[in-house]
This record gives sequence, structure tokens and C-alpha cells, in this order.
Amino acid sequence: MKLTILKEYLNESIQHVSKAISNKTTIPILSGIKIDADVNGMTLTASDTDISIQSHIPNEKNEISIIDLQKPGSVVLSSKFFVEIIRKLPASKIEIEVKDHFLTIIRSGSSEIQLVGLDPEEYPTLPSIEENRRIQMPSDLLKSMIKQTSFAVSTNESTPVLTGVLWTVNEGNLKFTACDRHRLGSRETKIEVNDEFPVSNVSISGKTLNELAKILPDQNTLIDVIFAESQVLFQLSSILFYTRVLDGTYPDTSKLIPQSYQTELVINAQQLANAIDRAYLLSREEKTNIVKLIMREDQTIEISSSSSELGKVTEQLDVSKLTGELLRISFNSKYMLDALKVIDSELIHIGFTGAMQPIIIRPAEESSTLLQLILPYRTTS
Amino acid sequence: MKLTILKEYLNESIQHVSKAISNKTTIPILSGIKIDADVNGMTLTASDTDISIQSHIPNEKNEISIIDLQKPGSVVLSSKFFVEIIRKLPASKIEIEVKDHFLTIIRSGSSEIQLVGLDPEEYPTLPSIEENRRIQMPSDLLKSMIKQTSFAVSTNESTPVLTGVLWTVNEGNLKFTACDRHRLGSRETKIEVNDEFPVSNVSISGKTLNELAKILPDQNTLIDVIFAESQVLFQLSSILFYTRVLDGTYPDTSKLIPQSYQTELVINAQQLANAIDRAYLLSREEKTNIVKLIMREDQTIEISSSSSELGKVTEQLDVSKLTGELLRISFNSKYMLDALKVIDSELIHIGFTGAMQPIIIRPAEESSTLLQLILPYRTTS
Repeated sequence: MKLTILKEYLNESIQHVSKAISNKTTIPILSGIKIDADVNGMTLTASDTDISIQSHIPNEKNEISIIDLQKPGSVVLSSKFFVEIIRKLPASKIEIEVKDHFLTIIRSGSSEIQLVGLDPEEYPTLPSIEENRRIQMPSDLLKSMIKQTSFAVSTNESTPVLTGVLWTVNEGNLKFTACDRHRLGSRETKIEVNDEFPVSNVSISGKTLNELAKILPDQNTLIDVIFAESQVLFQLSSILFYTRVLDGTYPDTSKLIPQSYQTELVINAQQLANAIDRAYLLSREEKTNIVKLIMREDQTIEISSSSSELGKVTEQLDVSKLTGELLRISFNSKYMLDALKVIDSELIHIGFTGAMQPIIIRPAEESSTLLQLILPYRTTS
Repeated sequence: MKLTILKEYLNESIQHVSKAISNKTTIPILSGIKIDADVNGMTLTASDTDISIQSHIPNEKNEISIIDLQKPGSVVLSSKFFVEIIRKLPASKIEIEVKDHFLTIIRSGSSEIQLVGLDPEEYPTLPSIEENRRIQMPSDLLKSMIKQTSFAVSTNESTPVLTGVLWTVNEGNLKFTACDRHRLGSRETKIEVNDEFPVSNVSISGKTLNELAKILPDQNTLIDVIFAESQVLFQLSSILFYTRVLDGTYPDTSKLIPQSYQTELVINAQQLANAIDRAYLLSREEKTNIVKLIMREDQTIEISSSSSELGKVTEQLDVSKLTGELLRISFNSKYMLDALKVIDSELIHIGFTGAMQPIIIRPAEESSTLLQLILPYRTTS
């Protein structure tokens, strides 16, 4: 392999694929980035077996010549040092030459780097995806759906399927669900599907989706999502992002969501979040995060927390609407803050079906398809 | 105590004094902030016995009424929660009332906070400083002298005096010296002293000076520095910053600095730093940080590092001037980068007296009073 390439494009590609590299890999060659150069351009591949990312750099783009290929070829270079050094090379052009035994020479301005390369034949092949079920959705929508749900996945690795976000496609409807036994976040959206086909029990690691979100462009460019047997492939313009589907059967969470409420509260989201945040600060010192909500006859609520060692926080808030039975309810304030943070709405609707039943938090607009659920705490007072 | 105060001023004062609070204190009352309110305003005090910071808030400033005092008094409040909650209170005015047993009520908008307070009588008194030796210097100069030297202090607590920056005042000259047996940073400046008096063997913890630098204003307002027996007091407009002088006798470092050089090199500082940074990246993987410098007949130098596992970095650089014996010399690249980072000069002068003698790095301008020294490594090649 011998070529020159513009640093800026190589660097961008490296930053994308390096998200798939794990420091904890037990397979030495997976600590490297595979580079393939041929007449179509350069392709970079990185993988930790759970995620694989492939990024393609074309020979030219918008009439700018990016790659000048002299000899096609492949090599695997240890990512550790390679990722950082490319970014810091002095000139805008980089020459890469692979010699005998995969010894790789990188030249740029006054710098010459020799890197011990590995045999690309030993690099595992990417999963083959049969293109049977494909949906398209805007990048920014996918990004916000990940943000609104992924924080609620379980961190307990003993039930792997719950560490993922469940994807369900049914009758032109895509739904994300994340649940960790104490809380749940879900969001739905209409999508256009060419053929009618259902997708069920596809759970994708929350961590993986957050890595994907970092690569997703902010604009509403369309992303292709292809569902295969045990893999999902996200197709961006020049990036392929493969991820494994988590093992196990995702539990049915639909029964957790009540159909009607005993008590309904509509309140300014920011004011509630600020009040709970102050109460959280104190409850955090007690390591319980417990905050209490008391509803009053005069259409106000009281948010409070207390610490035997430090003191007490009491907050009085007016509400926009309060109907039904007046409750006293305790909950994990950190979970409530997480839920409020992803609701981008001035007013929120909170529904209760009793002091020991799930609390349902939604934007006040009826049309919203975002839903957050947290379970209350049983407290003695 | 009962008063109302503008949040913004209280918060600023809390941020200043809280730098003196250690999480590791074994004296419970020192985890708190002492608040004194009287007809002159409010004073906040925090201390970890090594550092003590006192911040004064006047009743009014620039015709803005800051404090409305109803009843003077004192209390000590646990800093843990207090520091954060004040910043997050909803209204711009805060009411503070100390009741029986130092129970403190803080009211702001819809929030009411009850804090368990401690008896201010139990709070240690600040060191008394006899005003015998005082210098004045601009805040921004003090800040940059701290930045140019404090990184070079020793981190080895077994010789406490070397973990500090040595202050020497002699004949209208103030000098900072920091040294950790492998490197040294020093900077001098002319100062005006009313009486001629020497200051010697005053070593102030590098960590403490970095905390002080965070409080120092960027403008060239004058700071008073008062030297007492075992304490130094920094007087800012409304802040008193006390620090302990470190125990022990600071070694004489003057003999380390050669009077003349065998080899002299003048080179662009940024180009050298970038080249060493790339070589450092590789040497870091070897955990040695060793980088080699080779001088050539053709007025160029080569910077290189190598890793048996990864490969080699080689950099060719032109120099502005190279005179004397051509050397091959190895050094800790991290130390060299630290030294180059604080030299704000386009060209630097590096002086050598042999491959195993100290390397002296200075701005190329003769007038500069900044000097960095690093010891070379003995290497086999």
C-alpha cells in the first residue's frame, strides 16, 4: 500500500471508527484499526465484537482530491498511538507506505513515523447482513429518541437484555423502551416502512446507542436501519455502524402503564426540576436521594427532603392544575430529575394512581409520544 | 443573627473561601464555613489549618445595598451542602436567620432551608500576623510567576520543603524557585520595597499557590504580601489568604545553573514543542517518556523516540542558531514540554554543558528572567 491523503479526512474517519475500540479487548488485533486502500478510496474498520464501525473515505469529494493512490493494499495499525499521532502531524498531507512485514511508514512535513503493522488477513470479518428489514429515519430524531430513553436502561449486567433499549416496529410505528425495574422511559414515532413487517424483541445496548449518537449528524439527514437475525446495521452516508442484538427476552412492560389516573398534576417543568434539584442536594448527603411530594387543598405542592445530620429543605410550588385525591408520595429525586431533563416542554403532566403506584410523567401536550415512569418509595411517614 | 443579602455577593464569597476546605479534615468544625455578621458587613472564614481564607462582604458597594442587617451574630455552617444550595436558590435575595442552638433558617423565594449550625466559639482563631515585612506586586504578575514555577515542585511529601515554591527577596528583587531533583523552574522580578529587608527560606506549597492563583484577579491590581514568622498573608481587596510556610531548609540550587555553555541552540519554541509532543506520544507508551535530541553539522536537529512494540518517531527541525560541540542528549520529554509550555516567547535559547549536564531553557531575549532547567537521562545508545 502506498498513498497520500489529506490529514483532515483521515483524522475524521479515525475519530469515528475509534469509538468501537475497547481498551479491554482480549484479542490483540482488535486493538488496531484495519486500513484498506483500493481504487475506490480508503476504508477504516474497528471492532470490539459487540460494535463494529466502518468508515469510507472517497478519493475525491466536492472536486477536492482527498487520496492519491499509488499502490493498493491493507494493514492493521495499533490504535493506541495511531489515533493521536495523526491528529498531531505537522502538515495537511500525509503519506502512508506499507513495506515488508507490514512495517508502515507515515510521513508528514518534518515528521517520519515507523509503525509496526499487523497482518490484515488475521482481522475478523464483519457480520454479513441480509437486507431483509430496513427502516429509514431522520438522524436528529434518532438522536433525540436515544437521549430520551437510554439513561433509563439497567446497569446490572446480570440481565443483559435490560441494559439495552428495546426497539419495536409495528404498523408504521417505531417505539423505544428502556427500563431498569425502578423507572422506564419510552418514546414513539411514526415511520414510513415500505413493506409492513414487525420488529420485536430487538434490544440494543444503551452504551452502544450513546456511542452511535456521537457519530450521528445533527441535521435531519436520513439514516438507514437494517435489522438482521442477531445484528442491527446503521447506515450513514459514509459510515456503517454494526451492533449486536442483546440476548434474552425483553419483559412486557405495557402492563406497568396505567390506563387512567386517580390524581393528575400539571406544573411548570423547570420550576419543578429546580425545586427537586435543591431537595436532591440534601437527600444525596443521606445517600438515599429520597424526596417527598405533598399535595395541598390550595392547589400548591410541597417538595421536601431532610437529613438528620444537616437539616431540611422545603419548597412550595404553585401548580397549573391539580385534580383527584391529594397524595403524599416519596420517590428517588435523581430518577425524577433524569426524567424531567429529557422532557422539552414548558408544562408537564404527572399522573398518579396511588401512593405506591407508578408515577407517569409526560409533556402536557396530548400529542406527545414521550413517557417517563418512576416507581415511588415506600416510606414510613 | 438575622439579615438579608444579595445571592450573587454571598455566592462569590463562598466560592472564594471554600477553596480552603479540605474533604479530609479530622477536625469536624473545619468542614464548615464561619459566618460573622456585624454593622460592617459579613465575613466568611474557612480553613484547613494549612490555608485559611477570609472574605468580607460590605453592606453596600457602588451604591448597591448588599446586606440588610437586622441582628448581628455568628454561626458555622457545614460547607458540604451550603456551598451548592446557595448557588441554586431561586431568588436574588436570601434571608438568613440563626435561631436557638445555631439552627439556621435560609429563605429565598419559594425555598426554605433549615441547617444544623455549629457554635462559632469552637472555630479556631486565624494566625496573628505581625506586619513586619510587606511587599506589593501586581496580581497578574504574581499569577504568571506561580504558573511558570509551581509545576516544577516536588510531589514527594518526604521532603516537605521541596513541595513548595521558594520565595527570596533581596535588594529589590523577588525570585521564585521550584525544584524536584530532576528539574527546576525559576523567575525573577524587580519589586519596590519600602525598607530594605531580605526574605529567605520561605517555601510556600505549590498546591496552595495554585489555589491562590484561582482567586487572584487577572487585572494588575496590587496585592500585598506580608511575611511573618511561619505564615504568609496575601491581602486582596476584600480577601485575606493565609498560608503556612513549609518546614525545613530549602537547598541551595544556585550551583546547579552553569555560568557558561559548551553548546548553544536557538530554535522556534512552538515547532520544537510540537515535535517533542509527537515523540512524547510514543515514548509515553513505553512509560519512560525518553526522547533523544541529536545535533547535526548542517544546522538541523533530530528529535526521536522509539518503542520496541509500536515503532519509531523521527523529527527533523531547522534551528536559528547552533554553536559549540554537537551533542546527542536524552531527556524526559514530559519535563521538556512542561518547561516549553510556560515560555511565552517565539524563540528559545537552550544551553548545554555536556551530554550529562543540566539543560537550561530560556526565552531567547537576553532580558528575560525566566529560567527552566532539566536534567538529561543517561542512555546506552
